[in-house]
This record gives sequence, structure tokens and C-alpha cells, in this order.
Amino acid sequence: MSIVPDFQRGLVFDGTSGLLPAIAQDSTTGRVLMMAWMDEQAWKETLSTGHAVYFSRSRGELWRKGETSGHRQKLKEIRIDCDADAILLKVEQIGAACHEGYASCFFRSVDADGDARTTEQRLVDPEQVYGKKT
Amino acid sequence: MSIVPDFQRGLVFDGTSGLLPAIAQDSTTGRVLMMAWMDEQAWKETLSTGHAVYFSRSRGELWRKGETSGHRQKLKEIRIDCDADAILLKVEQIGAACHEGYASCFFRSVDADGDARTTEQRLVDPEQVYGKKT
Repeated sequence: MSIVPDFQRGLVFDGTSGLLPAIAQDSTTGRVLMMAWMDEQAWKETLSTGHAVYFSRSRGELWRKGETSGHRQKLKEIRIDCDADAILLKVEQIGAACHEGYASCFFRSVDADGDARTTEQRLVDPEQVYGKKT
Repeated sequence: MSIVPDFQRGLVFDGTSGLLPAIAQDSTTGRVLMMAWMDEQAWKETLSTGHAVYFSRSRGELWRKGETSGHRQKLKEIRIDCDADAILLKVEQIGAACHEGYASCFFRSVDADGDARTTEQRLVDPEQVYGKKT
């Protein structure tokens, strides 16, 4: 695959929230692991550290993924989309991406009626990882 | 993989925007194709038609993916995440997912300095598909 220099363009963070959606994908298996949010500081820290850093909307602060659980995401490649308002991280995932103990947060499948069922097995017990039930 | 019935839970659409992020992934290659948005009507129409329907934030209306270009996304599986506030569509993509003519909207790679470069080739000429330059 040839690398054709194109243009340098900063990300377009949302004018109201200051956030952008970021997708984490396992760089080896291609599995989509999770969807989270980044503000500009999280984006800069992600670039400078080589590990995924998000912005937690519920806690209102930077979320250095794996800081508590050890389940860090080491960057292999970063991509941005055509409108420069979505981020794709290809990562090496240590442990489980999901705080509920699943490899991926997308562990539930939805049928045509909109009913959801869990279709995966937990990798780890969240109580063991976080010290409490989730 | 066993199907373990878990719980039925509706999606949690954002209280302010009424939208949720939806990721489209090629069901065969695992490539992440695009990230777009759904409101409740788009979600329902996606379920009932078996093809991806989004909500266009720029146009403020339902976006039946491929209506103009023919580049439709046929659903193979739908997943929702742990917090029921993100959607993953595994799809069979007809043609190019990106309105710029690339197979995926994530056709630019970002280096550690944040500089973006196009790393893919166009599949189709957008002028041919949409009748104008994008």
C-alpha cells in the first residue's frame, strides 16, 4: 500500500461538547472493541503516550484506559475519517476492553425485533478487576 | 458460541440530540467502514428494512445509505454495547462506503505528530457516483 501525502488537517472537535467519537479496534483480529469519546487533551495525550486516552462523559474527566484495570490499549495505528470528526484506533488490547469483563463492549446481538441477547462469554470477572460488581 | 439469553434493553438515545453513534463494519473483511448517527426512527427503519439507515446531522433528515449512490449496506448482524448507547452494524457493503469514493471513510492514517496522510486508493470516482466533485 503506497503512502500518498495528502493534506494535514486537524480534527474537528464538536463545537458544543468539544468531543469526538473514537472507535477502538483490535489490530490483530479486527474485532471492534469499544466506542468512547475524546476531547482535544485526550487526543493529544493519546498521540504523545501511544496508549488510548479518552474523555469520560460520566465522570467529566480524562480516562486513561486501563489505569485501574491494567487493561490498556497500545496504539498500532490511528486513522481519521473523511470529515475529520471520527477517530479509529487500531490497538493491541491488554485483557478485556469492556468494564463488564467482556473482550468487546459489543457483546450483545440484536434481532430484527430489536431484542438484545448476550452472545459472548466473559473473559474476566469484573469484581476481580475492579473490586466491585458492575 | 452459545446464545445466552440476557436481557432486553432498549437503546439509550442521547437526551439532548436524540442521536447515537453507529459504526458500520464490513462483515467479511472486518474493516471499519464509517461512523454515522442514528435517531430512533433511523434505528427502527434499519431494523425493519435490513439496510442501514442513518440520521444526517448536516441535512437534518433520515439518510437511507445508498439511496443516491446505490452503495447500500445490507445488514448481517447488529450489536449494541454495554451501555446500550453505541451501535455496531456488520454489513455487506455495496460499492464504496465513503462519499469521497474510498472503500472506507477511514482512509487517512495519522502519525505521532498528528499529521494525516491518505493511505488508500479510491475505489470509485465520486463525480461519477454523485455527479459532482466532493
